[in-house]
Amino acid sequence: MKLLKVDTLAQARERLLKAAKECLPETEQVALADASDRILAEDIVSGEMIPAFRRSSVDGYAVCSKDTAGATESIPVFLKVLEEVEIGHPAVSKIEPGTCAYVPTGGMVPEGADAMVMVEYSERFGTDEVALYENVPYGKCIVLPGEDVKTGDIVLKAGTRIGPAQAGTLAALGVVQVPVFKPWKVAVLSTGDELVRIDQVPGPGQVRDINTWALSCYVKKTGLELVSAEAVRDEEVLLEEKIREAVKACDLILISGGSSQGKKDMTMEILNRISKEGVFTHGLALKPGKPTILGYDKEKHTLLGGLPGHPAAALAVFHLLFVWLWKQVTDQPDQPPLEAFMTTNLAGAPGKTTCLLVKLQMAPQGLEAEPVFGKSGLISTMAEADGYVLIDMNQEGLKKGEQVKVYRF
Amino acid sequence: MKLLKVDTLAQARERLLKAAKECLPETEQVALADASDRILAEDIVSGEMIPAFRRSSVDGYAVCSKDTAGATESIPVFLKVLEEVEIGHPAVSKIEPGTCAYVPTGGMVPEGADAMVMVEYSERFGTDEVALYENVPYGKCIVLPGEDVKTGDIVLKAGTRIGPAQAGTLAALGVVQVPVFKPWKVAVLSTGDELVRIDQVPGPGQVRDINTWALSCYVKKTGLELVSAEAVRDEEVLLEEKIREAVKACDLILISGGSSQGKKDMTMEILNRISKEGVFTHGLALKPGKPTILGYDKEKHTLLGGLPGHPAAALAVFHLLFVWLWKQVTDQPDQPPLEAFMTTNLAGAPGKTTCLLVKLQMAPQGLEAEPVFGKSGLISTMAEADGYVLIDMNQEGLKKGEQVKVYRF
Repeated sequence: MKLLKVDTLAQARERLLKAAKECLPETEQVALADASDRILAEDIVSGEMIPAFRRSSVDGYAVCSKDTAGATESIPVFLKVLEEVEIGHPAVSKIEPGTCAYVPTGGMVPEGADAMVMVEYSERFGTDEVALYENVPYGKCIVLPGEDVKTGDIVLKAGTRIGPAQAGTLAALGVVQVPVFKPWKVAVLSTGDELVRIDQVPGPGQVRDINTWALSCYVKKTGLELVSAEAVRDEEVLLEEKIREAVKACDLILISGGSSQGKKDMTMEILNRISKEGVFTHGLALKPGKPTILGYDKEKHTLLGGLPGHPAAALAVFHLLFVWLWKQVTDQPDQPPLEAFMTTNLAGAPGKTTCLLVKLQMAPQGLEAEPVFGKSGLISTMAEADGYVLIDMNQEGLKKGEQVKVYRF
Repeated sequence: MKLLKVDTLAQARERLLKAAKECLPETEQVALADASDRILAEDIVSGEMIPAFRRSSVDGYAVCSKDTAGATESIPVFLKVLEEVEIGHPAVSKIEPGTCAYVPTGGMVPEGADAMVMVEYSERFGTDEVALYENVPYGKCIVLPGEDVKTGDIVLKAGTRIGPAQAGTLAALGVVQVPVFKPWKVAVLSTGDELVRIDQVPGPGQVRDINTWALSCYVKKTGLELVSAEAVRDEEVLLEEKIREAVKACDLILISGGSSQGKKDMTMEILNRISKEGVFTHGLALKPGKPTILGYDKEKHTLLGGLPGHPAAALAVFHLLFVWLWKQVTDQPDQPPLEAFMTTNLAGAPGKTTCLLVKLQMAPQGLEAEPVFGKSGLISTMAEADGYVLIDMNQEGLKKGEQVKVYRF
């Protein structure tokens, strides 16, 4: 048996990141309408003040605040109404002591006024007089120019995922074309003579092809571009041809193979033949995930990943290595893990990091992490998991009630 | 001033849900490749055992476990090798005491064998003899038929969002066409004479149209179908025409208006004219979110929502009412809130539920919720928030260090 140099998770990540630095994602400009869920490739710096004018945050009267001194619910002050400001139009009056102007929510506060009295505290007399029943302090209900965003502010950082609030912020700044990272192009190849198409009934010894579907979904969910996904028979010539084809078109090839030693060796030999540098990680000290192999084709700038054949292991490794890597190269901030209490004792694996799938549930004393048990080949266990706990290779295990960090998928 | 009956958040949700029960989303079948992120409309019940056969989880030898009694690293047992089972093919031998068969990971365990000895603990002699150096218990490294999924198991429940593990599970069961909820068709109309297109520079008193973009993004993120999105001037005839058009084609119309009283009244009058039942919620005891109005067109089965004009308020109300509603009608389970400690004292609003935006950060004593301050019109505050805390209307406020539930966007 071949003696294998197995990498820790940290070592494998370091090697991958080093390779990925040679194939950093390109950037592109997309229309704001198409930017949802994309990752910003540059800081967005505001070229303007938002708001650009003094804006009222209520329906009411723009006043000199000193004029309202002493006003109460029973004793109003009376002011002359100079103007009814219209929304979307400039205010034209100049407020001086003894005068005011009506301004609707969002409307421009006229020069001279320094506070708003809400319409609820007013009583209008004819067109040009109003009684105000509130003593308002300086600045009340006025949003100042630049109070939302100032010229030169970094409003959104590179690495930010564009959600509703970010889309609104970009709209406010007039960012019509948004600089985002171009997703890596990915090919998924599942290998195995035991695999049958999902519309077929497996015969004895056969199983339906799970990994093509689960990994394709994960690739898309991560924001990467799925170029092709197919199952391939365990024929060395055929597999090599498929990989060579994929390397030409893609930034990342995921080969999920059977986890038997022979198959892993075959994938490794093919990858070594295809790329000069070949495979740099020959196995992972990770449970599950041992049969993982990693490499890089320097010439074509393509990352090569051989994932375990077990579906749950393949998904866990994809998450721990490639979702992680994509977030690294696109500057996405880490999502903070959740703190939860273990519901049970659990042994670690000496010399290996254990990726323990857990379900989260609320208990009176806080969030609980309940391990989702099952052999790594069982796909149904994976579907129940909300996230995972990493048990360090030097840790004997976890105790019931121990607080752990839960990373979400 | 018109006296308004304002609903609590709970009342508004109840009324919306009652209306939505008359326009429940339809279901449709989509190909598994297109099912990512869709919501299952039916429970998925397995018609099969997975695995369907006894499967080895290691590379090794299928044995009668009793034959390995006494085997150690120095004293092997010798067995006759009857067969090399190939992956994807039925095992043909029948293992009896004194015999065994080689089985790769994922391969079929032959009849008679009841445990696997890993290849690491074996030494092969020629084609038909092997020395085994491990005493294995009954059942070791054999996955039994149905151990992953049993016939009749509910494997995935209606309301489940299809992610990678769910896609894999559906593939394993041969679910080629997936029953999912058809998304509601949604129209977004932003009204306001102050709005200019995002590619224009706002003049005095004008602002760029934010809500069309932020709400469109949120509609898509929620999994709903965005049919149209546009800004409309504050002209009653024009707005009514636009809404009448949208009602014909959509299940939900979102009208985000200016938050001034006059504008709210105009939207209310139009909605009352358009639908017989008209508006059933005339304001919300929610901060921010007061100018929210809700209605239902019974004839066209269309939900009508008038959202505040302030961008952050519009997004908060959309989340609290319509994201909530969509999850309700599609049976999606609630995501458990996170527990976090407040970093500061904060007053509530008497008689109103306060929706307080917070940023989450890890501190030595656990997760902290840091309020994101800002008037509700400020879009930049929203972009920083990870979630929100609801301060009950009967609660005076929150104390620094108090544990709160944080709901994520």
